[in-house]
Amino acid sequence: MANFKGHALPGSFFLLFGLWWSVKYSLQYLSQKVNKKSHRAYCFQRVDAIEGGIKILFSLIGMLAEQFVPDGPHLYLYSGEKHDWVKLMNWQHTTMYLFYGLSGVVDVFTFISQVVPQGLDRLMLAMAVFAEGCLFYYHVLHRPMLDQHIHSLLLIAIFAGAGSTLLEVFLRDNIVLEMFRAHITIVQGTWFWQIGVVLFQPWGGPMWDENDHSNIMFLTMCFFWHWAAAVAILAVNYSLAYCCLQRLRRGSGEPYINLGVRQQKCDSSSQAAFLNGSDEE
Amino acid sequence: MANFKGHALPGSFFLLFGLWWSVKYSLQYLSQKVNKKSHRAYCFQRVDAIEGGIKILFSLIGMLAEQFVPDGPHLYLYSGEKHDWVKLMNWQHTTMYLFYGLSGVVDVFTFISQVVPQGLDRLMLAMAVFAEGCLFYYHVLHRPMLDQHIHSLLLIAIFAGAGSTLLEVFLRDNIVLEMFRAHITIVQGTWFWQIGVVLFQPWGGPMWDENDHSNIMFLTMCFFWHWAAAVAILAVNYSLAYCCLQRLRRGSGEPYINLGVRQQKCDSSSQAAFLNGSDEE
Amino acid sequence: MANFKGHALPGSFFLLFGLWWSVKYSLQYLSQKVNKKSHRAYCFQRVDAIEGGIKILFSLIGMLAEQFVPDGPHLYLYSGEKHDWVKLMNWQHTTMYLFYGLSGVVDVFTFISQVVPQGLDRLMLAMAVFAEGCLFYYHVLHRPMLDQHIHSLLLIAIFAGAGSTLLEVFLRDNIVLEMFRAHITIVQGTWFWQIGVVLFQPWGGPMWDENDHSNIMFLTMCFFWHWAAAVAILAVNYSLAYCCLQRLRRGSGEPYINLGVRQQKCDSSSQAAFLNGSDEE
Amino acid sequence: MANFKGHALPGSFFLLFGLWWSVKYSLQYLSQKVNKKSHRAYCFQRVDAIEGGIKILFSLIGMLAEQFVPDGPHLYLYSGEKHDWVKLMNWQHTTMYLFYGLSGVVDVFTFISQVVPQGLDRLMLAMAVFAEGCLFYYHVLHRPMLDQHIHSLLLIAIFAGAGSTLLEVFLRDNIVLEMFRAHITIVQGTWFWQIGVVLFQPWGGPMWDENDHSNIMFLTMCFFWHWAAAVAILAVNYSLAYCCLQRLRRGSGEPYINLGVRQQKCDSSSQAAFLNGSDEE
Repeated sequence: MANFKGHALPGSFFLLFGLWWSVKYSLQYLSQKVNKKSHRAYCFQRVDAIEGGIKILFSLIGMLAEQFVPDGPHLYLYSGEKHDWVKLMNWQHTTMYLFYGLSGVVDVFTFISQVVPQGLDRLMLAMAVFAEGCLFYYHVLHRPMLDQHIHSLLLIAIFAGAGSTLLEVFLRDNIVLEMFRAHITIVQGTWFWQIGVVLFQPWGGPMWDENDHSNIMFLTMCFFWHWAAAVAILAVNYSLAYCCLQRLRRGSGEPYINLGVRQQKCDSSSQAAFLNGSDEE
Repeated sequence: MANFKGHALPGSFFLLFGLWWSVKYSLQYLSQKVNKKSHRAYCFQRVDAIEGGIKILFSLIGMLAEQFVPDGPHLYLYSGEKHDWVKLMNWQHTTMYLFYGLSGVVDVFTFISQVVPQGLDRLMLAMAVFAEGCLFYYHVLHRPMLDQHIHSLLLIAIFAGAGSTLLEVFLRDNIVLEMFRAHITIVQGTWFWQIGVVLFQPWGGPMWDENDHSNIMFLTMCFFWHWAAAVAILAVNYSLAYCCLQRLRRGSGEPYINLGVRQQKCDSSSQAAFLNGSDEE
Repeated sequence: MANFKGHALPGSFFLLFGLWWSVKYSLQYLSQKVNKKSHRAYCFQRVDAIEGGIKILFSLIGMLAEQFVPDGPHLYLYSGEKHDWVKLMNWQHTTMYLFYGLSGVVDVFTFISQVVPQGLDRLMLAMAVFAEGCLFYYHVLHRPMLDQHIHSLLLIAIFAGAGSTLLEVFLRDNIVLEMFRAHITIVQGTWFWQIGVVLFQPWGGPMWDENDHSNIMFLTMCFFWHWAAAVAILAVNYSLAYCCLQRLRRGSGEPYINLGVRQQKCDSSSQAAFLNGSDEE
Repeated sequence: MANFKGHALPGSFFLLFGLWWSVKYSLQYLSQKVNKKSHRAYCFQRVDAIEGGIKILFSLIGMLAEQFVPDGPHLYLYSGEKHDWVKLMNWQHTTMYLFYGLSGVVDVFTFISQVVPQGLDRLMLAMAVFAEGCLFYYHVLHRPMLDQHIHSLLLIAIFAGAGSTLLEVFLRDNIVLEMFRAHITIVQGTWFWQIGVVLFQPWGGPMWDENDHSNIMFLTMCFFWHWAAAVAILAVNYSLAYCCLQRLRRGSGEPYINLGVRQQKCDSSSQAAFLNGSDEE
């Protein structure tokens, strides 16, 4: 659906997931930091499964919307009369949603059964993001300059997300990677909205001049403002998660999380030494 | 051989290997999961050697087919009369098969002698896939648009496969990487068939319009349908492997593989902590 | 500010930081090598915080300079009269400085509170460098050939810096990566000066011919001379740091750092064995 | 020196180094495999230092040859009369040699003093290879098609070599990476010779047609024949090193290296488990 709603719908999905991840991983990290014995871990796994279910739900909504909007293909792929494909744009979007749905299915199965190898859920998610990026890449290849540029900025966010998710296959439960995934998903969500607003002007107003080079310069910069804003959102959510946990602990009489200056940081150099032997004499 | 058979032959080779790997690595992973002491490991190594032998066989078939088909070069490389190269296409395909043959030879030697450094077999396989990709890249550079596009989608599968196999040099016996290799090999196999069908129409019917942009859009999407189908095939094979192993164990009176919810997943965070020290205070 | 000062200002910032890092990481590495128990570690953390503060200061100076120079935008982004963006170049540069400012803020917070996950400071720095590179990439896309080439050489330094900083998220306190970061920052600094000199001729003299291919050849080579010079500067700083520490130890009666030939280097192969199991029989 | 000798000289340097590395690393790996206590390690370090010295020597020869051949620049960079640069090609080649010289210097210092951080020698070598690749990239950008293609194949070898050497900074003493470096260096050496032969026909004969597409197809394939030949050379050298060591041991009455089938390979899966926790239940 090359209109405002077709960009706002996935944008909202990504935004919701990005915000949710920024809260979830903050809580998970902070609560693990306090009680080393992770008796709350099971609860987080249940949350992963629910998340998978919601992914499946969102994908279904997206697929149905793409297929059954008034000007959609209604599941017809090839029209015998015209000897041509029917509404390929909608079919491509359906394919993108399909991959996110598959990722949700793998999430659920990872929770249900322990024979599913760990890391497959992240791999499937990385594949979904990569498939989205690839389809978009060929999708916008022959569009006007402004359209192409604004989508190519989206591709930066998409491929950065695919790359970081792929790393999570090998470095699972790494808070920095999880935060980055949350961050880049927020950026993707808000940028989808921005694309919708720039290309389709939902609230009226003059259209953007597609051949004005300064528009393109502005949008490049604007993309990084979204990026900076997402960093700020992440910082706020992390702080809120920290405050909530502190208040909970105060209520239950447990000790505070120590806010003192980090002193043993250097001990972690032992791991660097381990990895590359650079400290050995 | 730029005809249907020339695409169906390698396609079938890749498909067979992909399916076989999806079964082998599933069985290997699941049986290691149950009995930690891997007394069946030797059997899997023997399988690796047989696999190497089959690789050599397939490569020889491919090389001979490329050289000695009626319109092949019959081992002539340069024709003195015409002052020109003879059938370079067939020679390029022969080179591709040669590298897979070398990879098979390294597999066999890795089994025979333990002085061959571990990881060389994976490196040689990665090189073979990379050489195939590189030759294809220059191969299709000056073809019609549809031809070029359909082969460039193949390149995505080829280079993704080369990259993941390269990772296996350093992360050997990682089930996620092995599954991905099986998956991408299946995709490569089915996509070779798809290329043959689209470009040469083996069962009659009108030729595809090479300049119709919507054909290109459809094929991009179609590639990811192959991708999703390969994921499904992998899931089915993994489930079948699991059921077979369960039935075997039931027969022999051993306990079932536990299907309960995975609870100790969080303990694995210790490795993340080890790798980046992010949990240290 | 597309003039000499607009290149000399960031150039000086990068040069200062590069030189400072080359000294800091040399001292940190050498002092840790001697006394395994890093009782001076706290002091280095305080230095990190001060560094963050200076980053914030430099970014503010840069942002204010870009906004409030006589021909700057003075915080106006859109001019209602002309229906056009105001001074987008300056706004883009402001955005670049903003990201370095954010990186400084994360540095300071990492010192203040230990709930900030380790590695976030490096990730934020890598993001800042990446954002700078991305903005530059689109920035110079439609410039004259010489201008574009000289900036594209800058991009090599920028993206190499972003990549190595990203690696530091996972391999913290790795002296080789830290040295490389210092090195590439010095290169970036001196190359900014070179760009300013070539494009704006601050000390008079004839302008460079923008269409002369040999100018471009010279500049490519010149970039690697900067690179080699930065290696030399690094070596000098490292030696000076070593001499200072030796003199300090001599004063305090501690033993010298052993200058003997490295003999146990091979023991470090145990880690390689650990990582890829290549030594196992 | 854009002539046959200008390609044969570096080609021979690379070939010598590649062959030497293939022998050295084979011996080092095999001798470490037998006697775990590496009392011969010191000898290999001395060899590293000598190697560094030879690198410096070769670089000096290369630099002097480029500067002082009859049509060389004789250290003049800018000609005041013509207002133009003097012989930039030779200067670019001098720069390439300079970086290999720097790499040799770091090798020597790594041997002399143990305060040089481990890994710096590999980083410097990677930088030298990268600088060579970068200079070549811009070097051949505006050449005839055949010339450009044959050099772009060289770039594959160069950048693959730079990448693998960079990995060695973090995975030192990894036999697979060292073998790959030896291999790619041999390929680079023989390909330099091939370029010289194709472009300058040292032994007479008709020139290659620069616009014939089939020449380009042949050279692509030919590059991978060099690749396969280098694999074969490596295999031969490794076998010879093995035989020599066996004969030495037979003489000294030590036990043979066990040639039995590798059985404990699966135990190495413990490292995989360690790295990604995929085996945990």
